[in-house]
Amino acid sequence: MVSFECDYIAGAHPEIIRRLEETNMEALSGYGMDRYTESAKEKIKKACGTDTAQVEFLTGGTQTNMVVISTMLRDWEGVIAVPSGHVSVHESGAIEFTGHEVLEIPGRDGKMQADTLREYLVRFYSDVTHDHMTFPGMVYISYPTEPGTLYSKKELEDISAVCREYEIPLYLDGARLGYGLMSRHSDLSLQDIARLTDVFYIGGTKVGALCGEAVVFTKNNRPDHFMTSVKKRGALLAKGRLLGVQFDTLFTDDLYFRISRHAIEMAEQLREIIREKGWEFYVDSPTNQQLILMDEEQMRKLSEHVIFDRWGVYDDKLTIVRLATSWSTTEDDLRVLRELC
Amino acid sequence: MVSFECDYIAGAHPEIIRRLEETNMEALSGYGMDRYTESAKEKIKKACGTDTAQVEFLTGGTQTNMVVISTMLRDWEGVIAVPSGHVSVHESGAIEFTGHEVLEIPGRDGKMQADTLREYLVRFYSDVTHDHMTFPGMVYISYPTEPGTLYSKKELEDISAVCREYEIPLYLDGARLGYGLMSRHSDLSLQDIARLTDVFYIGGTKVGALCGEAVVFTKNNRPDHFMTSVKKRGALLAKGRLLGVQFDTLFTDDLYFRISRHAIEMAEQLREIIREKGWEFYVDSPTNQQLILMDEEQMRKLSEHVIFDRWGVYDDKLTIVRLATSWSTTEDDLRVLRELC
Amino acid sequence: MVSFECDYIAGAHPEIIRRLEETNMEALSGYGMDRYTESAKEKIKKACGTDTAQVEFLTGGTQTNMVVISTMLRDWEGVIAVPSGHVSVHESGAIEFTGHEVLEIPGRDGKMQADTLREYLVRFYSDVTHDHMTFPGMVYISYPTEPGTLYSKKELEDISAVCREYEIPLYLDGARLGYGLMSRHSDLSLQDIARLTDVFYIGGTKVGALCGEAVVFTKNNRPDHFMTSVKKRGALLAKGRLLGVQFDTLFTDDLYFRISRHAIEMAEQLREIIREKGWEFYVDSPTNQQLILMDEEQMRKLSEHVIFDRWGVYDDKLTIVRLATSWSTTEDDLRVLRELC
Amino acid sequence: MVSFECDYIAGAHPEIIRRLEETNMEALSGYGMDRYTESAKEKIKKACGTDTAQVEFLTGGTQTNMVVISTMLRDWEGVIAVPSGHVSVHESGAIEFTGHEVLEIPGRDGKMQADTLREYLVRFYSDVTHDHMTFPGMVYISYPTEPGTLYSKKELEDISAVCREYEIPLYLDGARLGYGLMSRHSDLSLQDIARLTDVFYIGGTKVGALCGEAVVFTKNNRPDHFMTSVKKRGALLAKGRLLGVQFDTLFTDDLYFRISRHAIEMAEQLREIIREKGWEFYVDSPTNQQLILMDEEQMRKLSEHVIFDRWGVYDDKLTIVRLATSWSTTEDDLRVLRELC
Repeated sequence: MVSFECDYIAGAHPEIIRRLEETNMEALSGYGMDRYTESAKEKIKKACGTDTAQVEFLTGGTQTNMVVISTMLRDWEGVIAVPSGHVSVHESGAIEFTGHEVLEIPGRDGKMQADTLREYLVRFYSDVTHDHMTFPGMVYISYPTEPGTLYSKKELEDISAVCREYEIPLYLDGARLGYGLMSRHSDLSLQDIARLTDVFYIGGTKVGALCGEAVVFTKNNRPDHFMTSVKKRGALLAKGRLLGVQFDTLFTDDLYFRISRHAIEMAEQLREIIREKGWEFYVDSPTNQQLILMDEEQMRKLSEHVIFDRWGVYDDKLTIVRLATSWSTTEDDLRVLRELC
Repeated sequence: MVSFECDYIAGAHPEIIRRLEETNMEALSGYGMDRYTESAKEKIKKACGTDTAQVEFLTGGTQTNMVVISTMLRDWEGVIAVPSGHVSVHESGAIEFTGHEVLEIPGRDGKMQADTLREYLVRFYSDVTHDHMTFPGMVYISYPTEPGTLYSKKELEDISAVCREYEIPLYLDGARLGYGLMSRHSDLSLQDIARLTDVFYIGGTKVGALCGEAVVFTKNNRPDHFMTSVKKRGALLAKGRLLGVQFDTLFTDDLYFRISRHAIEMAEQLREIIREKGWEFYVDSPTNQQLILMDEEQMRKLSEHVIFDRWGVYDDKLTIVRLATSWSTTEDDLRVLRELC
Repeated sequence: MVSFECDYIAGAHPEIIRRLEETNMEALSGYGMDRYTESAKEKIKKACGTDTAQVEFLTGGTQTNMVVISTMLRDWEGVIAVPSGHVSVHESGAIEFTGHEVLEIPGRDGKMQADTLREYLVRFYSDVTHDHMTFPGMVYISYPTEPGTLYSKKELEDISAVCREYEIPLYLDGARLGYGLMSRHSDLSLQDIARLTDVFYIGGTKVGALCGEAVVFTKNNRPDHFMTSVKKRGALLAKGRLLGVQFDTLFTDDLYFRISRHAIEMAEQLREIIREKGWEFYVDSPTNQQLILMDEEQMRKLSEHVIFDRWGVYDDKLTIVRLATSWSTTEDDLRVLRELC
Repeated sequence: MVSFECDYIAGAHPEIIRRLEETNMEALSGYGMDRYTESAKEKIKKACGTDTAQVEFLTGGTQTNMVVISTMLRDWEGVIAVPSGHVSVHESGAIEFTGHEVLEIPGRDGKMQADTLREYLVRFYSDVTHDHMTFPGMVYISYPTEPGTLYSKKELEDISAVCREYEIPLYLDGARLGYGLMSRHSDLSLQDIARLTDVFYIGGTKVGALCGEAVVFTKNNRPDHFMTSVKKRGALLAKGRLLGVQFDTLFTDDLYFRISRHAIEMAEQLREIIREKGWEFYVDSPTNQQLILMDEEQMRKLSEHVIFDRWGVYDDKLTIVRLATSWSTTEDDLRVLRELC
């Protein structure tokens, strides 16, 4: 039995476990006031190629979205996202819990279009009753998107340009950032993302860490008293070292990018296998998540050897099945899929 | 200059003003603990034809939606509405302010379809990840809808049946309830609405009152400690008499329905005038609001004699213009429109 | 039977009713965009003796506190108040509903002491863990206070000085402002209050209006997009004229101050009667509310002719009874109390 | 240099690290749906000696308080706590962030008194205006308390009895539960706590874990759809194994209690040293935290060899200094303190 259920089925990359063990008995101050956290922040800033960045660590993705969005929005504002966005549909209303609305605009293959965004903003400000509406105060996108697609550099530049024209911060959810950047179809670098967005996060949970996400405020724009706001949301980790050591390890010797690249290579082989088997792709994804359509009989058969995720309902007969690779996927896992299914 | 801007351009029906004056110097207890509030509740319950109803008064429509929805939803639930619903778009995020999500499903001409609702619910519960989503915990519709359309009895029965099957309360926003019920195209009565919904409100602000909405919990289902929850939302009026006297008057001698009927008669003449002028209808509304399409030149000309509302943007050239009648519209107002425009 | 239950037992001052009737059929725009609201704002600014003030109208006191406090505080801040403050104890948690903490510091006779406030702030900032605490972001006081006491000009200046030293806005709840300013023991004017606070409100509900409070942002410091934030809290009245006409009337020919003065004169006679009867004062109040201590037998006897308020529990035997005068109290009311009780 | 700064200066107990490493590459489902989480829950239920308990894991203490309190309170309710309670003062308003008030009643040495609690409740319900107040809907205590004191079994039984009389759930914050239970002055067992409270948590962060708290709903009273509410608060950990493995380890072979006992033995030696040095105790604590009073000179000298916490301001001259032991404190640490300071 092998698992392609998601990209967080294993613990942490062994190098992270080794570093946690190595540093375990050192007496360190809490709440991120330790040397490993400090070092991790510096390494990430360097990788982003910017002096104006501020880096903060949080524990999980939904928590990060909630904290970042609700501390950056003003009272009268909401965040724009596409209907398939994680904040729109898979966070049990965490953004609304903080008192803010998610403003949905149509997307394509999980991506926001710069034109659609601009149209929405033009229409909003031309509506004479917009004082009775939620103001657009932030744009949320993810890279890769939920179904695993990628923005091209041109597409991201266009969205960024609209945001700057309207003075709205652009926030990029990078829960699987490594798997996006290391795709052969990506023409974006971490530096590009730091340049084109106002805030983004580098996902750890899905890319080799036990937990943890690194938020990068790219323009010296971290909200005032951020630690207190994090505490107020129950999101301040006492032993900040747990996050610091993990990200310090991930950003030493390019570990984050090397393990992401591995997941992509595994995904490329996975795509090959899917094609060989004649399974139908739901969407064409150049990243680590492959969505395919299967009927009940196909799923029954697959489940004899493979753990997978029922990602969504396609129609009366077909289900969208997700097969995900990650840093922990092995050639052996693929062999089982190729030979036994 | 005459105004068809909206249905709340005048103060209150003169009979209400008279009663406010008449009762003005009586010493009455606050917070709705007065005889007029008591009397108004009884009259409304009688008009609804039910013994199990509980009636409460609030000041405005958005406030009412916020209070009702947030006191009836449970922590993990949101409210289903169509994209043009008042709670979806014109309340500046008041529902989200209380920590709850508005779950949008497609509508037609401002109305929710029972089939679409059922599909949404089927799909929600068949999604294996629905524990990470907001649960549908209430259905919100309005009668008339935002663009002025009406549900038939059959349509409302169908929606009600889906709600009961899924044990989700059905909430009907009746900001303009009188103008809906008194339309010649309505086959619904107040009793029908009390029977088919779990909670609804009878709009006063737009139907003859200075302010005020009467919430009817139809099945003995008023949330516990409702007064405290109202207070907590800053929505408890000290001089409850202001609401009590107004609704007591509106539900004496059928005043609410008589003035609503008048508005509908004025709207029928207005539709005749619109047809005569050759203006294009945006939607076919059998109630007091008429939405038409006009270009800039037409609006300029109209504005010489008439105050109207730019309801929305239609396309690059055309604007959706609203002309609304109300209890206060006169034959003279219509004459100006017919003869001078 | 006469009522001294509270200062909102009657409707509105007859002059207000007259003006509501007079303006009733005029077609006016909604949401405060009418000439009466405009006029009322101008008159209030003039009465405050300042060019930098911005005036907004809301419907009730708790609503006003909630809207003002939650739109002025930043995410990490709370509001400082004394334990007897209305926001601390009598708003069912309306401030907390908006996500903010009320930080209580000890008071004396319902009043905050400048020294206590300063000590609190010194201690807060000297606490090394204050990043894990709610920051003091506003000071809330009321004038008169809940038990009816008054700040002297010196006391208010001292509190104001501490606030300015710490750059914290000072907010004064003036639910009964007229009854404070018109007391013979007050050495403060409306202009003083506008000068010494950052925001305050002039209570209408308890001083002659059917409903309504006038918020004065004294230093051009109204929060951005205030109307949208008001709407988001369900607090935007459609027929803003109801508030505009009332305050326009109250600030014409000093009506607000004249009727407040009347209430104070009635209160002075009331104090005389209390002394004659030998009833014990709970607190020495120079304003319209008199708090006295009574046992059950005394209350039983009083209740034969008078409606009064059981304000609080004093001890096992005694209850704190409130007798309030207002603009609507008459010599006849006092005569009943004097002669029959 | 040795550190007595707090009880979370080290990573995790080595046995936990070993188990994390051992299980690291196993493919497990997320969100707590793994065998280690299941096993940990069973062991904890057994240790609590009850069949009706439900166990859930969260990441940190403030998060746990926020999630438990806000999912158990109803809309109109707040939580009662003493002023030194963690929820009252050291959570940056996390409870208020969820829309609920913390109702403070006086305590003694950090402890709530059953009599004070009862008086508060009697007074609340005898106040005729309590519909305008926040209802008491839960009692929050901690064991040990913030300053390190302990409730006796009798004291806890008395508080529990008041709660049951008023049908209010009793919640015990056990951030340092092991250090309380293992104190020689404790006459309470884990089973007692499970019996006398309605919900409590077993702190991991401060007792040997990298992070994590185990919430025990003792009476089959876990809120409905708890996982969705946790997700909504951004508190659902994707790799639930991180919490499951840690608590499974802590509750294997009594590890949790053995390491807690060690911390207490270290604290007893620490108290001896404090007495020898002639330092003044601020409070008499039988648990792992010792609070002493020091002037600036004493602190300067101590800081040459020891890292400690400035817990609070005592007066103009003296600071309350905290010296904490934990599972990671060694005899060597104590030797430094004894010999060099």
